[in-house]
This record gives sequence, structure tokens and C-alpha cells, in this order.
Amino acid sequence: MSTPTLRDPVFTLTSGPVDAYPAVLRGLSRTIHYDYDPVFLAFYERVNEKAQAAMRLSTPPVILHGEPVLGLEAAAASLIARDDVVLNLASGVYGKGFGFWAKRHCAELVEIEVPYNETIDPDAVAAMLKARPDIRIVSVCHHDTPSGTINPVEAIGRIVAEHGGWLIVDAVSSFGGMDVHAEDCHADIFVTGPNKCLGGAPGLSLLGVSDRAWTKMKANPDAPRASMLSILDWEQAWRRDRPFPFTPSVAEINGLDAALDQYLAEGPEVVWARHALTARACRAGLQAMGLALWPAREEIASPTTTAVRVPDGVADADLRRAARERYGVTFSSGRGETLGKLVRIGHMGPTAQPLYAVVAISALGGALGALGHAVDIGRGVAAAMAAIDAAG
Amino acid sequence: MSTPTLRDPVFTLTSGPVDAYPAVLRGLSRTIHYDYDPVFLAFYERVNEKAQAAMRLSTPPVILHGEPVLGLEAAAASLIARDDVVLNLASGVYGKGFGFWAKRHCAELVEIEVPYNETIDPDAVAAMLKARPDIRIVSVCHHDTPSGTINPVEAIGRIVAEHGGWLIVDAVSSFGGMDVHAEDCHADIFVTGPNKCLGGAPGLSLLGVSDRAWTKMKANPDAPRASMLSILDWEQAWRRDRPFPFTPSVAEINGLDAALDQYLAEGPEVVWARHALTARACRAGLQAMGLALWPAREEIASPTTTAVRVPDGVADADLRRAARERYGVTFSSGRGETLGKLVRIGHMGPTAQPLYAVVAISALGGALGALGHAVDIGRGVAAAMAAIDAAG
Amino acid sequence: MSTPTLRDPVFTLTSGPVDAYPAVLRGLSRTIHYDYDPVFLAFYERVNEKAQAAMRLSTPPVILHGEPVLGLEAAAASLIARDDVVLNLASGVYGKGFGFWAKRHCAELVEIEVPYNETIDPDAVAAMLKARPDIRIVSVCHHDTPSGTINPVEAIGRIVAEHGGWLIVDAVSSFGGMDVHAEDCHADIFVTGPNKCLGGAPGLSLLGVSDRAWTKMKANPDAPRASMLSILDWEQAWRRDRPFPFTPSVAEINGLDAALDQYLAEGPEVVWARHALTARACRAGLQAMGLALWPAREEIASPTTTAVRVPDGVADADLRRAARERYGVTFSSGRGETLGKLVRIGHMGPTAQPLYAVVAISALGGALGALGHAVDIGRGVAAAMAAIDAAG
Amino acid sequence: MSTPTLRDPVFTLTSGPVDAYPAVLRGLSRTIHYDYDPVFLAFYERVNEKAQAAMRLSTPPVILHGEPVLGLEAAAASLIARDDVVLNLASGVYGKGFGFWAKRHCAELVEIEVPYNETIDPDAVAAMLKARPDIRIVSVCHHDTPSGTINPVEAIGRIVAEHGGWLIVDAVSSFGGMDVHAEDCHADIFVTGPNKCLGGAPGLSLLGVSDRAWTKMKANPDAPRASMLSILDWEQAWRRDRPFPFTPSVAEINGLDAALDQYLAEGPEVVWARHALTARACRAGLQAMGLALWPAREEIASPTTTAVRVPDGVADADLRRAARERYGVTFSSGRGETLGKLVRIGHMGPTAQPLYAVVAISALGGALGALGHAVDIGRGVAAAMAAIDAAG
Repeated sequence: MSTPTLRDPVFTLTSGPVDAYPAVLRGLSRTIHYDYDPVFLAFYERVNEKAQAAMRLSTPPVILHGEPVLGLEAAAASLIARDDVVLNLASGVYGKGFGFWAKRHCAELVEIEVPYNETIDPDAVAAMLKARPDIRIVSVCHHDTPSGTINPVEAIGRIVAEHGGWLIVDAVSSFGGMDVHAEDCHADIFVTGPNKCLGGAPGLSLLGVSDRAWTKMKANPDAPRASMLSILDWEQAWRRDRPFPFTPSVAEINGLDAALDQYLAEGPEVVWARHALTARACRAGLQAMGLALWPAREEIASPTTTAVRVPDGVADADLRRAARERYGVTFSSGRGETLGKLVRIGHMGPTAQPLYAVVAISALGGALGALGHAVDIGRGVAAAMAAIDAAG
Repeated sequence: MSTPTLRDPVFTLTSGPVDAYPAVLRGLSRTIHYDYDPVFLAFYERVNEKAQAAMRLSTPPVILHGEPVLGLEAAAASLIARDDVVLNLASGVYGKGFGFWAKRHCAELVEIEVPYNETIDPDAVAAMLKARPDIRIVSVCHHDTPSGTINPVEAIGRIVAEHGGWLIVDAVSSFGGMDVHAEDCHADIFVTGPNKCLGGAPGLSLLGVSDRAWTKMKANPDAPRASMLSILDWEQAWRRDRPFPFTPSVAEINGLDAALDQYLAEGPEVVWARHALTARACRAGLQAMGLALWPAREEIASPTTTAVRVPDGVADADLRRAARERYGVTFSSGRGETLGKLVRIGHMGPTAQPLYAVVAISALGGALGALGHAVDIGRGVAAAMAAIDAAG
Repeated sequence: MSTPTLRDPVFTLTSGPVDAYPAVLRGLSRTIHYDYDPVFLAFYERVNEKAQAAMRLSTPPVILHGEPVLGLEAAAASLIARDDVVLNLASGVYGKGFGFWAKRHCAELVEIEVPYNETIDPDAVAAMLKARPDIRIVSVCHHDTPSGTINPVEAIGRIVAEHGGWLIVDAVSSFGGMDVHAEDCHADIFVTGPNKCLGGAPGLSLLGVSDRAWTKMKANPDAPRASMLSILDWEQAWRRDRPFPFTPSVAEINGLDAALDQYLAEGPEVVWARHALTARACRAGLQAMGLALWPAREEIASPTTTAVRVPDGVADADLRRAARERYGVTFSSGRGETLGKLVRIGHMGPTAQPLYAVVAISALGGALGALGHAVDIGRGVAAAMAAIDAAG
Repeated sequence: MSTPTLRDPVFTLTSGPVDAYPAVLRGLSRTIHYDYDPVFLAFYERVNEKAQAAMRLSTPPVILHGEPVLGLEAAAASLIARDDVVLNLASGVYGKGFGFWAKRHCAELVEIEVPYNETIDPDAVAAMLKARPDIRIVSVCHHDTPSGTINPVEAIGRIVAEHGGWLIVDAVSSFGGMDVHAEDCHADIFVTGPNKCLGGAPGLSLLGVSDRAWTKMKANPDAPRASMLSILDWEQAWRRDRPFPFTPSVAEINGLDAALDQYLAEGPEVVWARHALTARACRAGLQAMGLALWPAREEIASPTTTAVRVPDGVADADLRRAARERYGVTFSSGRGETLGKLVRIGHMGPTAQPLYAVVAISALGGALGALGHAVDIGRGVAAAMAAIDAAG
């Protein structure tokens, strides 16, 4: 059946934005309170406390009022001083991209780059830090979404901590979908947001900031102040007795509150388990259909996004269009270097439910068939179901 | 994976209530206007016009403010006079059930009853009307939901019309999901509601009422008046210049408005096509897994509900519980005589999307496997996908 | 400024429906669950528990799935047996109206009727019961909304209890806005609903039913069964392990849950206090403008609706239209006998906030002025503010 | 009556955020679509078209994904080159504040500053431009919210245009509430947002950008690129066939769409009229109570915010707290230099309804009385009502 393109999708199985949980959508429709109303001031403090609990931080997080690229750009601009040497770890398009921001602010940018279906080897980081003791800041993308791969940030964090460096971690599309927390990986700035695995809306950044990051930023004369890019401006903004640097995005805070409630009420471990299982079932099904995962090894495949290679002779845009038009299923493409090479199936928040793996496999398999690249959908679904049942 | 029972369902694939379209949920949250506010009076008239358009009626429908059992009970109480002979056509639990209401009000109840996996033969109706020329009212359930079967109401309607009788049609769970309209089947009272194929909320009845039904009801001294069960009270209530007999369910009207907009904007024919295709794919998949449909023949199977026989040795409650707990998928059971014998998969409104057939097959197949009755899910899904692709 | 009639109202200050609390509107937009999903069954039980807590009942209430006229009609049809003598207490249009329903079912209807700006004298009830020891059922409307007057139901209830009769109380538009509870007034059936002082949506009835009412209804062969009008059908429906007689209005239950949460969280005493204060301020303001209250004495004036006499020479429809068109304020008219004689200002749920009295006085005063009946709005508002401040 | 501080406000009469229109709240709860879904791409283009229509622009506006301080900071950073001389016009805290941003980017900052209860004289601008022909950019705040005053931007714009300069206009809190449009005032960058008079949520900036502004920004090597602060990145983003620089705030776009629909459907002229009338009534009432407006002359008072001087001997924080606690009414304080000197009453979007003037006057009057500064509320309300009625 050919669904015209402009019909609403039936299943949005992307790497984000994904549709939000129903409770988040209702949260977004709550009364817009005046930001200095005592009710809002107390509410904002409470939302910060919930975010702190969810992120398992010892100190309150910072909420920045733009989607996580704001958090990442602000982290680069705030933490990196003009005399810093920065080591950027690039195992994908997003990790590589952070280097461009870092370069604007630092004295020298050093990189470790690996193929974009691989992950960073902590030993290589250790070796580089030994070779370049002047490196002061290390940046890494935990889940490089355009590759669907997970870097070993805890091991990297230990090494950076021993080195005495500062670590910036981009955990935008992994936090909330797996066990990754700022303090476990010694992150000094840890950036995430509500719109991926928390099943919220795009429009906010959540930052875990260490005490030494605050110290370094305050000492940095170039760190943005009185600016949308400032982290420093917001240090005390979580407190009900302190002013906001500018008007917070009230509706987004309302939505974030609902997303955090959902996450904490369901239980983080339960949430992570369904992300992991959905991804495992999806990988099993894709491989059973004869498709190849993009990550070099299954151990580094993300539990929140499954990247699958586009078979030779198939154009990825045609593939995604066929899935969308025939079945109403939206997938993500690659980005930059991975564009055209892979298709991404997101497992995030409300879509991290095992049976969505079956939906993804059927739609991807059907779309491949429609493009003349027949695969055995039945075999794929059977393998996915077996993976789900094995977890029973 | 064992999902505890009290977690929210992931997929509600029942014969209703189904979850409403997102636009309907937002509709339900609109301002509650005072019923005599000029804005509400005009809005109520407009909603009636939309319902008239959707139901393809020549005159305004009646909205009763309770779920369709109200519409059905009110139809029996209003149209049937104490000296009427009623022919009730029973091909299932709901059709049979209407007879109990009819009996309360009529002089004599005659029935044609067939096995509950069969449908009514119009010739049998013709024969009965010939044998009993005193029959004045005929009642039939178009889609007997507990059986998932569709009665030939258009043919029956022609026969009743020729006979000069009045026809009551229960189209609660078919209207909006297939091509069935009051005037096409010469129905005098045609009862439906927003919560099945229109993807709305339960809480209202929609009645198409013919001119001769109005005449008969007005002449019936026992027809309820000044009562929740009255149809007569509401004859003029659609008009902005007339009072309501009692306070209408404002939120339900708000939701109905959104459901009608959705139906008319998408296009009834498009909506019916996706109901039909979803059911066809579902039946193909179930049969490919070796399961038997409940309806005696596929031609009489409903496009809005697929009833599948529970295999010998499997308890239907265990089966539904396994699907719910393992996969988060909720199915409907049978009712009354069909309870325990079948499981029902609804294709209604937002769930009438072909890929939901794949979800249903996987969950039902997986649940059967978990209960020791292994089926070939892969084969089932492949067959469903083939059916979907054949419609391409 | 002339606001065209069809613009949305700015303030709906009616005796209901009033707009719902924002949290209720969001509640109405929650997922529509399948009624037999375990999540919904448990939820329905929990909502009943909350309703029981709010109504301060010893046993679970009954929720009927239609607006409170259903509850009232069902109470008459269920409790009154064909050999019962019923005493109906009529101090207004609604109380009088109940008599018509009662008459349908009883052997004899006796009434005490007082002018519709007065209330029932408990001594008169005692005298009547003494004179007619065969009276078995007494019915009374607590707040006769079309008059804005409050009957002394606790005193009446004591008398009926001593007499050994059964008492039906209509508390639709008072419960939730003042201290009135079924057991405090020895009510055997106590009918209310979510859409007045609870700030919910119309579409449900809430019934407190005493043990002896259950006994009497079960013994009544004419009590509706298998009917929309049945109370008996629903006796066990609140239990998660029992079936529903028919599909409950899921969205309305979602909304009711939110309304009960709001009521219980704010605290009933706090809620009643703001209803009372708003009404007090409103009465003070109206009288200061030289207008006369409809109730014969201020002590019997309702805290949830203020009925004000329309001055001579002013047509009530013109008055309401002027308030609506000039200021966007919607008031209620009278009903039946009180129609044309008074205008009603509701103080219910979200509109039971003292400053709404100022809004009402200004709009009513302005509308009177526009019709050539100038009043001193400033004096009215000052008096209302003084009443509010006196409560400080 | 003492309402505890943490109860929700009853009326939010601030200069923003104000609560959004109900339709906007529902808009915010729409499905979160994947940004590259064809449905979202087409929708985003359509929202831009609506914004263009509302802003009466010849070319598409730019939507930036942060509240309007982002738009203002981005305008300064993008348009001002390092060799530019900037003339900043400061008649209030916000106008003055823009100078700090401008200073970061320009060669020299020149200012015309007037007392913060005054407005800029176009002749002074003409004189300055004559004296300093090297001035290339002029910046002005149309409605300096902390003062509640309106600058003559059309006259200023003509002068700047004749001079050949570029003009930046901050119309954040005036656009949508009065007749002010980018092209009418020859603005090269015109910044507004959805959360003031459009009755939307905070979280987006709307920018009208002239062709020559695009040219200048492109030629500016320091204009932010690949940054949250970039305007250039978004030049083509409104087109459905072009990528987004980063993920747009989908929920905010959903809300903006609803806000624009509301504005265009009601009719801009009608919307402006109710803003103007509400402000006029409010000023009349305040003055009748013996209070002084903050603006030096009534002609320069804003139709979207009324700033009233705090009487001697009253602390503004006490005054606002009393209004909030006693009546549930939230007002805005002054900011910076005006803090403590005035209280602001917003008339924006849903609160721009004449009767809200009565609410404001009553609450402010009552709060003053409670602090021992009695005023004649009745007189105030009477004057406000007279102003409203005069518009009839």
C-alpha cells in the first residue's frame, strides 16, 4: 500500500527527536507560569532536584534553554581557555564535530581519530596523554549517534582524571537509555538533554558540571557571560531565591518535569533494560535477514540506536522513503561521513519497547524488498522474537 | 522479558475502547464551555453537521450522551411499541443480546439465530417476513464484535423495506471502518459511536433516525420522554436555538468534533482501505501460522476485528495474559458464548494501520510459544507483509 | 467595546458547566485505555477510592456514566417501588422536577412545596411524616440551582432517619463546594457529579448509596437491571476483578481522577472556604449596587451560586446578552419558574475565587448600565473587596 | 483572605511570560515529529509562512530556537562588524542593555539616553546622525517593558533609512499587541517572540531580516556561524528541502503554529484593539485611584504593559506579595533602575481583555489598602468601566 508521503508517520523510529511519552505531551500543555511567580520558582528548583537525582549528581545540574548543541557549544566556549591544549576523541561525526568548536577557543587541538565504525581505545588515550602532558582538556562523544557506537567513557574518564585533565562528555543520545552518569566517568562537563532516551521534547540541555569545572570556567576570562552561550550565568539559577539570567523556556521545563517523573517512577534500571533488549532484538533480526551492522563489533553497538549498513546497490534515501511511504515508518539517515552508508533505527524512550524491533525489521525488510533487494523478513522477525523471549 | 502486568500497555489492539487519535485526545482537553453559551450552541450544531456528513445522512443525527449501549437501549425502548412483533436476527452475542431489550417492549419476539461464527442469510429473513407478515420491526447487529463477523445489512435492509418494516441496525463497531451507512441499508435507527473506528472516546451514541422512525416513536406512548433513555427529547437539540434536555457531555462533544474532523479530512474511503488491509494482513498471518479464524468463511470476517480461534489446550486468559505481560500487547477476549473460544484483535481507528498486523501476529505467536504451543511467527509475519505489499 | 457574540467567552461564570481546572483538561487528554486492561481495572478501583474519600463514605460510591440527571433518574427508578409513598420536597425547579420522576414509579406522591425563593422547613417535614406514617421515601434537592438556595438537608435527614424512611438527596451543584456529605445527612442515595464544584467535566454521576438502599433496590422488582438506568448493575463494578455492565466513559474517568486529586490535594475545607467567600463577596457587591438577591434571606443563599433578581424593566435575556457581548462574561439564566426573574452567577471549582466576584459585579453592573438601568459599580466592587478583605 | 504563597496564581497579569491561550497549550502537546520527517519539513515551512504573514514581511522570517534574548544577542553579534559605529537609543533598561551586547562587537558605541520614563525624540536621532555620519547601525527598543513606554520606531526608522544606516528593533513585547511591523519601521533586524502578545510560550525568537541585513551579515567575518548564536545558519532553514543547522524545538514550533493561527484568525486589528482598550481602562482606573503612571505622558504609555509608580512609603515587593497572597494576582516588578519604583500590569495575549483591568485595579488597590495606603477601589473600577464602555 502506498501511503502518500505527507500522511503522518505511524511509527517514528529515529535517533531523535522521537515522539515524547504521552505524559510529557500533557506536561508540555501545563499552565505557563510567570517565571518569577513563587510557584514557578519553587517548581524550577524541584525540577532541578529531579534532574540531579536522575543524573546521579552530587550537585545541581545546569539547565540551558536550547537543545543540546547549545550545551555542547557552551561547554567548549566556557571550559576551554585560550591557552589550553585540547585532546578531542573522534570516533564519529559528532565527536569529530566537537573538535571544530574546541578549535575556536583553544591554543592547540590534538585528536585521536578512528574509523567511524570503531570506538576509542582507552590505551590510546593514555598513550597520548603521556606523550602530551600539556593536554588539559579531553572531549569525547559517548554515543556517536551517526554511527550507533558507544565509547568506553568510564575507562577514558579514569585516565583523564589520573592525568589531572578536564573531561567533556557528550552523552546526549545515551543518557537515560543506559547506565552512564557524569560522576562515574569523571566528567567535568557532561551534556545531555530530554529529547532522546528520556522521551521528552527537544529544546533544553542538561549539564552535569563538576566543582573543578566551575573553578576553571570562572577563571576563564573568555567564558561567555551575559550570553545565551553562558553556563556561568546559570550557576545559581536553580535556587528559588535567585534570578534567571533570562526567561526560561517554561513549557520545556514543564515537559522536562514530566519526563523526569516518568524516568524515576519507572526506574532507571528498568528503562535501560528495555532499551538494551530492543536493540538486541533489532540487531538479531537484522543480522538474521543477512544485513550487516555498521559498528565493527556488536559489543560497541549502541543500545539506543541500531545502525545498519545499506546493502550495495540500494540508495539509502530510496530505502527510507520506501519504509515511510509503504509502511509509515520513519528511520534516520546517517550524517556527514556516514550519510548514504547506513540507516539508523532509534530505540529511545517510548520506542525502546522490544516489539518495536519487529516493526523496524518488517518495515526495513519490506522496503528492501520493494527496491529489489529481497530479504527474509520472517527469519528476521523470528530471530528478534527469539532474542526477546530469551530475556524472559 | 516479563513486563509486570501493571505497566501501561505498549499496544492496545482490542475491539475497543482503543486509544484515541492524538488529535482527539487534544480535542478532549479543550475548554469546557457552558452549554448555553452562544459559542457552544453554534459549535454543537456544527458537530452535528459533521456527524451528518460522516454518516451520509439526509437529516441530522441524534447524539445521545452515553456510550452506544444507551443508543441501542433507547432505540429498543423508543421504536418498539407494546403491540409490535419484532424479528431479531442473532448471529452473535451482541445481536442475541438486543433481543433481551426488544422483548421488554414488544408483543412478541421472533428470532432467526445462526451459529455464532456464521452470518444471517437474507433469504431466511425474506422467508420469515413472508411467514410472519405481522412482523413490524427487524433488528440486526452489523458487526457482531464478539464473533468478528459482518452481516449483510444492505441486503437485509432492502427486504425489510419491501416488507414495510422498520429496521434497527447496530453498527457500533463497524461504522467508520468500512462502507456502511444508515440510508444504504434502509435503517430506521442506525446506532454507532465515536469510540471504535472513529478513534474517539467512549461516552456518546450517534444515531441516524429516519423520518418514519420519528413518526413511529412519536406515536408510541411508551417511548421514553424526559428520560436519559429518550431519543425524542433530543430531536431538535442539534439546533442552536433549541434547548438541551439536559447538560450534554461537553468534553465528549469536543472529542467527537476532533474525531469527525480526522475522519473527514483523511477521507472515509482511505480510512476504510487501511482497516481492510490491516485485517487482511492479520488474517493472512494468523492462517500462515496455522491458526484458524473464528468466522466460518473469510468473506464474512470483519475488517475491524479479527477473531482467531484459541488452539486446543490453550486457555484464552493465559494467552492474553502472556501477550500482555511479555510484549505489552492487549487483545480482547470473546464475550458470553464466544468467551474462551477466541481472541480478538482490533483494527480500529489509530490501530487500523497495516503494520499493527505484524505486531499482533508477533505478540500472539510469541504468547502461544510461551504456553508451549509453538507457531512459526516468521511465516506469519512474512504472510502478513506479503498481503500488505500486494496492496501496494 | 462590542464583542461579537460568537467570540469565546472571557469568563464563564455560570452555574455549570463551568470550565474545568487545567489539570482536569489535561486529565481528559490521557491515553484511552481498554476497559479490561489490568492497568485500567486497577485505575478504576483507585478512582472509586478517591471518590469515596472525597465523599466521605464508608462504602464505595457508584459511578454512573452519564451526567447527574442520569443519577437522579436512576435513583428514582431504582429505589422507589410501586407501592411506595414518596414525599418530595420542592423549594425550586429542580426539587419540583424530581417529583415527576418519582411519580412514575410510586404509589402516591406527596409534596411539600414552598415559594421558590424559600427553603424547606424541617418542622414541616416532621409534621408531614407524622401525618402520613406511610411515607417511605423522601426526596430533596440540597441546592436548588435555579434558585440559588440551600435546603437544610442534615436536619431533614435526621427526621427522615427517625421516621425510618429512605432519603434521596440531590447534591449535584453543592457537593465539593461546601460541607455536605451523604452520611452526615443520612442520605440513602446521594447524587452528585464532577462538573460543578469539583471543576470537572459533565458526563458522570457520583452516587453515595447506603446499605439499606442497596437492600431496598435489590428487593424492588422494577429497579432497572441490564439498563443504562440501572444502579444495581454497577454495585461491584468498582472492583478490579469484576466486569463492567458496559463500557465506562474512559476519558471522563480520567478527568474525574484529576478533579478528585485536585480537590483532595487542595483540601476540602480550603475549597469550601473559597466558594463561601466568593459568594459572600458577590452578594455584598450586588446588594451595595442596590440589587436584590433572589433568596428570601441571605442565610439560605448558596455558596456556589448567587441568584440575583433582575430589576424591573430589564429583560433578563438582554441583560445576559449585554454582559456576554460587551465584556465576554457568561451568566446563567433562571430555569422554568425562575426564568426571566433572576440571573445566576456561579462560583464553582475554578471560578470560586474571590476576585471573580469583582468580575461578576462589574460585568453585571456594566450590562445594567448599558440597558439604561445604571448602578454604582464602584460601590459594588468596593463592598465586594471589603468582604474579601474582612476574611483576611 | 490570606492565600498561601505557593498556591497557583488565579490571575497572571505580568509583562510575560503570561499563560498561553488554551489553543496554544494544546498545540504544545501535539505529537513531536522527527525533524526530517516530510510531514515536519512541510509543517515548518508552513509555520514560517504564517509567521511571515503575521509579521507582514516580504521575505520569510528567521526562527531562532531560544527565547528572544537569543534573537537580540544574535542580532548584535551578526549584524555589527568590528569597524561599525553603533548608535544605541536608551530610554529604559532593555534599550540600555542592548548597548552592552553592541559594545562587544563594534568599534565605537554612541548612545542617546533619556530618563527611563521618557521616550526617544526622533529629532535627537536625526541630529546625532548628522553629527556622526559614521554611525552605521542604530538600535532601539520599541517597547521598553521595564518602563512600559513606547518609542516612535517608525519615525526613527525613516531617519535611519535616510541616513543609510541599519536599524535593529527590539519589538519583543509589543509585536502582536499593537500595530508595529518590521518594514513599516525600516527595521533591518526586527526581533520578537511568541510569548508576549501572541500568547505563546517562551522559547523561540522571531526575526524579520531585511535583504541588506543579510548582505551585511554575510560580509561580516565575525558573524556567528555554526553556532547557537548564528542567524546566517538559518537563512534557508524554512525551506522544506533544506537541512536544519540543529534540531529545532519541535514542541515550541507546534505551539507557535497555534499562536499564529489564533492571531491571524481573530484578526490583528481586533487583537490590537483589545490590548489598547485594556491598557486604557487600566490607566483610567489607576489614575482615578490617585496613583501615578510611570510614563511621563500617557501618549507614550504602552498598550501591552501598564507601569504604575509605587506610592511613597510602600515597598514594591510587599505590594506584589500582598496582591499575590491576598488575591492570587501576580504582577511584574520593575527591572534594574526601575526596580522598586513601579509595578507592571501586563496586557498581553489572553490577558488583553478589558475586564482584566478591573481585576488588576481591584487587586492592586486591595494590596495597597492592606499595606496601609488606602485607595478608592470603587472609584478606580468605575473609571475603568467607563473607559471600557466608552469604546462600546
